[in-house]
Formats: sequence, C-alpha cells, structure tokens
Amino acid sequence: MANYRNVLVAVDFSEESKAVVKKAFEIAARNQASLILLHVVEYASSMYAGDIPLPEDLNLDRDLAEQAVLKLKALANENGIPEAAQYVEIGIPKREIVCLAEEHEADLIVVGSHGRHGLQLLLGSTANGVLHQAKCDVLAVRVGG
Amino acid sequence: MANYRNVLVAVDFSEESKAVVKKAFEIAARNQASLILLHVVEYASSMYAGDIPLPEDLNLDRDLAEQAVLKLKALANENGIPEAAQYVEIGIPKREIVCLAEEHEADLIVVGSHGRHGLQLLLGSTANGVLHQAKCDVLAVRVGG
Repeated sequence: MANYRNVLVAVDFSEESKAVVKKAFEIAARNQASLILLHVVEYASSMYAGDIPLPEDLNLDRDLAEQAVLKLKALANENGIPEAAQYVEIGIPKREIVCLAEEHEADLIVVGSHGRHGLQLLLGSTANGVLHQAKCDVLAVRVGG
Repeated sequence: MANYRNVLVAVDFSEESKAVVKKAFEIAARNQASLILLHVVEYASSMYAGDIPLPEDLNLDRDLAEQAVLKLKALANENGIPEAAQYVEIGIPKREIVCLAEEHEADLIVVGSHGRHGLQLLLGSTANGVLHQAKCDVLAVRVGG
C-alpha cells in the first residue's frame, strides 16, 4: 500500500484555507502520517518599485511574517497541529513549498485549488512549475461548489 | 471524515500510467470508493491540416479509439477494474475528464503529473483549466525520481 508518511499543507489564508487544512489533517490521520503546515510570505520589500527609498527601519517582510505566525497558529490550533509543525517562510511560494517538502521528505503536498497560492499559481506559466520540481504527489483541494 | 466516494483516474498510456492507476486503485480501496478509468483519444482528424482531403473511409479517431479500448483493458485487468468502469472518449482531454467526472459525481480526479495528459497540460495556458472547471479535488501523482 502506497500510504503517505509525510504530508505538507500550504495555505495562503484565503477563505478556503480552513477547509484545506482540515482535509490535509484527515488525510494525514487516515495514513498515520506526520503533517506540517506552511505559509509563505511573498517578498513585500522586493515588490516595491517606487522612486522614494523605503525607510531603513521599515521591515515589511518581517512584520508580515510576524502576523502570519499568529494567523497560522490560529489555523493550526483548530486541528491540534503542534507549534513545531507550523512553518512561516519568506520568499517565492512555489519555491519555498517545494524546498520545505524536500527537507521534510514529504510525499504529499496539499494546496487549495483556487487560493492565491493555489495550484494554478504554483504552476504559473513557467515550464519549471512546482510539479516539475516537486518530488512527490500534489493534491489540489477544491473547496465549496 | 471527508473520505472519497467516487474516484476517476485518467491515463494517457505514457510510462507513468501503470503506476498512476495503481495508486488510484489503492486510494479507492482505502476509501471504499468506486473507481473509473478513462482514456481520452485526442481528435486526430481535426488536427490534420493538409490540402489533400482525407479519404472518406479513413476514420482515424475511430481506429485510435479501438486501439485505446484494448490498451485500457490491459491496464484495467492488472488491477481488476471491471469493464463497466473502463471509458474511452474522443475529444479534448481536459474537457472529457471534467465531463465524465461530473457525470459520475467523482469527488477525486487522479492524473499523472508528467504525462501527456498530466496536470501541466490539463491546466494548459487557458484561464479555464480543469481546476477551475472540476468540481472536485485533483491529485497529481508523481511517478519515479
């Protein structure tokens, strides 16, 4: 039986995230697999393209990451996912998702199919989308009608 | 528990198909779900763009479909999937997959992630890829390294 052992679920805090985590939790439970929860904060500073230099003490990425940690904790608590299994990374979502999956030898990545970090975006328009990089299965969860 | 009840696996007879069907079979078994197996023959006649008219008795699509039925049967037999659960359709893969999934109220579509009908292709470059049309979860199975 090709049961999954290590499941990674990536959320973007869109409306579907709650249901996506719930489903990943159930799949992990059914497979008696470990589960880790990831949110990737997309580079904010690097997206700023204005002419006026940003103040040096403005650390958008860090501030966003701090908020994300709290949001992720709330989401994790609903499913009893321990703090050690909660990850917030700063970077390019598809790259960070694939990286963390490899680090933890995940054999299943779960994402929503419609959120900001959904599969549509993960694949993007590049030939080297997450599916070519990911060394494991990818489940896109459809939430709602 | 959000178990799956009706699983559809779509194959393109690429090298990974065998492993994709095996995995779908296992998922269906674990979930005590029904399983249907689909191959879509892409329109061959309509892809012909030559100046010389094709002979009227040449029915490429039908011939390809007949071959596909035999190939699918061989693949199904390995996993004991009955004939009634084997489908060969002629058309545009992503459209046929989504259609059959809806007809059978599938709650999970399983595809390979790298084959000709893999998720990369299913999404394609259109905004209305299978993920936007599919009313269910989609699992992209990674085969091999």
